[in-house]
Amino acid sequence: MADTIIAKQLRTEVTEDGSLRLSLAEQELSPPTGDGIVVEIAATPINPSDLGLLLGPVDPADARQEGDALVFPIPPQRMGALAARTGQSMPVGNEGAGVVVQAGPEAQALLGKTVALAGGSMYATHRAARAREAMVLPDGVSAEQGASATVNPMTALGMVEVMRAEGHKALVHTAAASNLGQMLNRICLADGVPLVNIVRSAEQVRLLKDQGAAHVLDSTAEGFGRALVEALAATGATLAFDAVGGGPLAGRILGAMEQAASAGQAFSRYGSTAHKQVYIYGRLDLRPTELAANAGFAWSVSGFLLTPFLAADPARAQRMRERVMAELTTTFASGYTETIGLTDALRPEVLQRYARRATGEKFLIDPRR
Amino acid sequence: MADTIIAKQLRTEVTEDGSLRLSLAEQELSPPTGDGIVVEIAATPINPSDLGLLLGPVDPADARQEGDALVFPIPPQRMGALAARTGQSMPVGNEGAGVVVQAGPEAQALLGKTVALAGGSMYATHRAARAREAMVLPDGVSAEQGASATVNPMTALGMVEVMRAEGHKALVHTAAASNLGQMLNRICLADGVPLVNIVRSAEQVRLLKDQGAAHVLDSTAEGFGRALVEALAATGATLAFDAVGGGPLAGRILGAMEQAASAGQAFSRYGSTAHKQVYIYGRLDLRPTELAANAGFAWSVSGFLLTPFLAADPARAQRMRERVMAELTTTFASGYTETIGLTDALRPEVLQRYARRATGEKFLIDPRR
Repeated sequence: MADTIIAKQLRTEVTEDGSLRLSLAEQELSPPTGDGIVVEIAATPINPSDLGLLLGPVDPADARQEGDALVFPIPPQRMGALAARTGQSMPVGNEGAGVVVQAGPEAQALLGKTVALAGGSMYATHRAARAREAMVLPDGVSAEQGASATVNPMTALGMVEVMRAEGHKALVHTAAASNLGQMLNRICLADGVPLVNIVRSAEQVRLLKDQGAAHVLDSTAEGFGRALVEALAATGATLAFDAVGGGPLAGRILGAMEQAASAGQAFSRYGSTAHKQVYIYGRLDLRPTELAANAGFAWSVSGFLLTPFLAADPARAQRMRERVMAELTTTFASGYTETIGLTDALRPEVLQRYARRATGEKFLIDPRR
Repeated sequence: MADTIIAKQLRTEVTEDGSLRLSLAEQELSPPTGDGIVVEIAATPINPSDLGLLLGPVDPADARQEGDALVFPIPPQRMGALAARTGQSMPVGNEGAGVVVQAGPEAQALLGKTVALAGGSMYATHRAARAREAMVLPDGVSAEQGASATVNPMTALGMVEVMRAEGHKALVHTAAASNLGQMLNRICLADGVPLVNIVRSAEQVRLLKDQGAAHVLDSTAEGFGRALVEALAATGATLAFDAVGGGPLAGRILGAMEQAASAGQAFSRYGSTAHKQVYIYGRLDLRPTELAANAGFAWSVSGFLLTPFLAADPARAQRMRERVMAELTTTFASGYTETIGLTDALRPEVLQRYARRATGEKFLIDPRR
């Protein structure tokens, strides 16, 4: 019989008195039964979606040490929106990978295997799971290489699946120099899908061009609007995935799609008949989304979330997962700029760096450190 | 053989030199052949959707008489968006009704009948059409009563159809004291559909309450936000049709739907799983639509246009049309505050009144005057 493991787990809590508190909690993991397993987490990435839960609306610069915990004041006007999580100590970490160190009688085959997991609570030394939730990494693929096997790969692949399912023939992507964006660029190059990449600096333009991208536009450059209409006309893209969310960008894309779709068409006061869709899948900019009245009437702006998309078609999700596993070190490779330990995540100067969400920077946690 | 009719037709033209020009043009209507008919228009309403084409972006106060025409300066920065209609003299008027005064050999049965038409070019003394396009009004229904048989009735009925087709169980409507809004209220009362009406004054609240509406909220009143969440929770409405379009209203509705959907649910950083949909079908407010980041990820904001909706399911459209004809003087009755002649429409002081788009005011043109 295996021993009970005392795992260390990173927790975030909004307290009644208006603070956000980060701490390391101990969690007892009983020896697994049935098809249960315990994975010693070796690598778990810090994704923007993790930061949303971890830090909520606080300013990273306001961190105050309180014993082993880190405490931040919450702006009083934000407490209403946090009512549902107030008073709950919540684990964090959407995905990760590590070695199976304990396994129930039905999961013995997994013992010693390196597996990837998703589903939360990964910022921990150990995590319990069921055998069917574990994706065994191919031989020679490390935990670090498998740590980001779900959020970015399945989202990027999901974009192409949505494009096909909804009858579009090309894609627009914003914040396109991100890990996810580079991945999407590789998928589109491999599958022959025209992709219009929108980034925020000349350096990011070069980065994607160097990776073979045909259309890379800098939204901060002069002439961006005209260049966007041209790229949309050239590709016929009527579908965009936007990680920025706030501000005028989503609306500018819609307006440019409308301009590209109307060019050479007879005037209609209701705009073009081409349906234009923007999915907002991230909120790098927390300001309101602004949609100018220049896109006609055949358009939608929608939120996009991976989990319900995958749940809507399990066979499709399985097919996507198999491709990710097969191309984990090529198409779906993730790069990290820094690896930190679990306790480092609670050091104010480290936190301020990983909380910046800077494109091109990506942190990995190795809880064994 | 019938005589050629010289019809007078209201035209709008964006000229190369940056003006918008309204005028009356003469149009020769040859005697109809086959199933052709000519209708002497007796009643044609001025809908907000007509004003969009008629006046484009001009300020009604800038009208300048030029012979029989009325000319307005166009702000130079708006000319780009008008490129596709520049230099074209365009007829106006989405719908109307009148008596069939000429008919081809296959349409003789329609001669003398009062019919309703839709499809443009109604601001005219006469309009040519095909027999199959004409909806013969029931006995005892006048041209005035049949003039608005398409735009408002089919749009209002379409909202309830969309609700059922997309699996929602209640509706939200803005600018709800409009002719269309009162119509929707009557449909919802008749069909037992819970409806949350949003209006902009206490007077409009009284108007709809007097017509039996259960939920009428004044968006300018204190406590509107809280009242909206309560009404959404009470009705379970996750679908809204918004005629305002610009400003924060569409986003406030989404945010309130999310609050109502999340109440009593476990916290999820991604928001509730209930899909929330706002359709923007009008643009009473031409500012950008502002969507705050408080609606989770299960939402869409989309344009809504009647014509493609009807075209998508001809059998449904036919069923809707039959109901409208049967209830034209009850559920689908339109009220007009003023009737003007075709030449009156070109008088600056009259134009400034009908161009106000004030809720509760509605103009009818009788081209026989």
